[in-house]
Amino acid sequence: MFKTIEWTGDGVRMIDQTLLPGEEIYRTYRTYPEVAEAIRSMVIRGAPAIGVAAAMGVALGVKNSRAQSVAELRSDFETIADTISHTRPTAVNLFWAVKRMRDVFEKALAAPGSDAQKIGRAKTLLEQEGQRVLTEDIAINEAMGRHGAALLSDSSTVLTHCNAGALATGGFGTALGVIRAAVAEGKKISVFADETRPFLQGARLTAWELAKDGIPVTLITDNMAGHFMKQSQIQAVIVGADRIAANGDVANKIGTYSVAVLARENKIPFYVAAPLSTIDLELASGDQIPIEERSPEEVTHWRGIQTAPENISARHPAFDVTPHRYLTAIITERGIARDPYTKTLKAFFDRKDPQHASR
Amino acid sequence: MFKTIEWTGDGVRMIDQTLLPGEEIYRTYRTYPEVAEAIRSMVIRGAPAIGVAAAMGVALGVKNSRAQSVAELRSDFETIADTISHTRPTAVNLFWAVKRMRDVFEKALAAPGSDAQKIGRAKTLLEQEGQRVLTEDIAINEAMGRHGAALLSDSSTVLTHCNAGALATGGFGTALGVIRAAVAEGKKISVFADETRPFLQGARLTAWELAKDGIPVTLITDNMAGHFMKQSQIQAVIVGADRIAANGDVANKIGTYSVAVLARENKIPFYVAAPLSTIDLELASGDQIPIEERSPEEVTHWRGIQTAPENISARHPAFDVTPHRYLTAIITERGIARDPYTKTLKAFFDRKDPQHASR
Repeated sequence: MFKTIEWTGDGVRMIDQTLLPGEEIYRTYRTYPEVAEAIRSMVIRGAPAIGVAAAMGVALGVKNSRAQSVAELRSDFETIADTISHTRPTAVNLFWAVKRMRDVFEKALAAPGSDAQKIGRAKTLLEQEGQRVLTEDIAINEAMGRHGAALLSDSSTVLTHCNAGALATGGFGTALGVIRAAVAEGKKISVFADETRPFLQGARLTAWELAKDGIPVTLITDNMAGHFMKQSQIQAVIVGADRIAANGDVANKIGTYSVAVLARENKIPFYVAAPLSTIDLELASGDQIPIEERSPEEVTHWRGIQTAPENISARHPAFDVTPHRYLTAIITERGIARDPYTKTLKAFFDRKDPQHASR
Repeated sequence: MFKTIEWTGDGVRMIDQTLLPGEEIYRTYRTYPEVAEAIRSMVIRGAPAIGVAAAMGVALGVKNSRAQSVAELRSDFETIADTISHTRPTAVNLFWAVKRMRDVFEKALAAPGSDAQKIGRAKTLLEQEGQRVLTEDIAINEAMGRHGAALLSDSSTVLTHCNAGALATGGFGTALGVIRAAVAEGKKISVFADETRPFLQGARLTAWELAKDGIPVTLITDNMAGHFMKQSQIQAVIVGADRIAANGDVANKIGTYSVAVLARENKIPFYVAAPLSTIDLELASGDQIPIEERSPEEVTHWRGIQTAPENISARHPAFDVTPHRYLTAIITERGIARDPYTKTLKAFFDRKDPQHASR
């Protein structure tokens, strides 16, 4: 099996998701600006995986710092955190991970000792924390899978959009983790994968990782999903999320809103699977979530081939917001949240559980 | 300006729509099996344009026939009609055109004279009829434009799906004809074009022909349409049709159903522009419309580049059916039809007007 991301001791190794499924190439990044560029150029993508990459990127930057004093190290940390934070705006896991690394950094500096001792401790603790974010993420996905699998009936066909799988996380996946868990329980699940233009995460990534697992997958273009729903060929929809507001509004890959509307129109349950690190209680509603607008060339060109005329404009919002009224439930590592999300989501954070209560 | 299709005297000349917008190549087909293959491989596509190509294909086949007797010519006609009829199943204009040519053929043979005279007359009349289908189609589109333009408000942005333009017809277009007519009236219309996977008719054809006309066009992927509707950036939707049942259910390019659902959800009017030759009163509802399933390779590959893994399945329904309850109105050359379509559409056919009353 492949590894989406791992710590090599002196760098961060990732599978290059821009080349899948044609080539399975791993790249090792040995500086934090390289990690930032890997996030920006979507070598790694998916909110939880971006969180892991951000954490490891910060750890790598601090590890490589030549700071001789705590003041210098603080200055380096700010530069690193700033660079990593400005890679992509929508997935909140990025900011969550940077904040988590900052908390560890401050704790390392707060303990007594000389500057040299503090610097050494900060480097060690951040390196450990980066790896912990990864292992925790996998455990969180597995927990999400256990909760979510119960929602899928046996012998059902599940539609998913984009890639919320092992490639979008530390491993196992959010939406695809739920599907994997249901399959592990012996349920016969088939998947319809929206190809997810313009980046084709569904065609290139979801189809690839499900095929590796032997889970039956049928690829469709995004505009076919409604047709197959109307023909009763889809029994449930599960997607991931890039950011969830306190009221349950969900920012996710462009096209998710359309899938949600079509699911409701056809009376098909629509589930969002996401860890608590994707939930942003500071935003009251989805209207406040910043939506990344990427280059229109990603719409007008494919692998360097121009598919549209020269003299036209194109738009490329990378995400959209699905109002919470279209959701059947949100699957998290702490259980299933249903409307009213303002209450149910907050309740998960209020539980005394060391890893996430601090957000 | 380009010509989608024309009669050359000894062949049918078409712009090769599979190569647009990169190359503007015209091809002349000098036998009816070549015309059939051009329809099948989508060198020409769009229901009205397929109707013109079918009529000219029949005319070409009969013109090239070496039949020495009426019996031989009849046998040749059946082979030609059968070949043309089996190119694509959904667009009813194909069958409409073949039937129209058959009626002219029978009339030519019914008139008195020797076999040689009848054969000569059939060849001449079919050649004229093929050209008449083309010129009528353009006039019909212009009439549709006049009726439809009134439905568009000034300074509005109109979403369209696939290509229902000059390239999909003899010229001017159905959905794009309405937009062109509104622009000609001085209205400020901008267009959002769905790229329309997998064949990218929106990116390659709609964007190309609107840009040629200087009508502002913004290209989006299919999965963005809902997002821009929700953001109130789209004031109306107009699409074409491949077949309309007696009750107003509309078969059109895959993805049309999704656009219609999203339009209704966002309280945006959804118009279908189609000539009477696209309306099939013999089918009570859209459930009876045959939906072409094309090769899955058109989904998993783009210009020979494989974009999905090897070992997965893919689906490629080329059309879907939008139930009439999602329609605001159907724009035809005889006026605007609204619910109940079973009555309003039939009324257009019952009017005493030479060209279409015969269907």
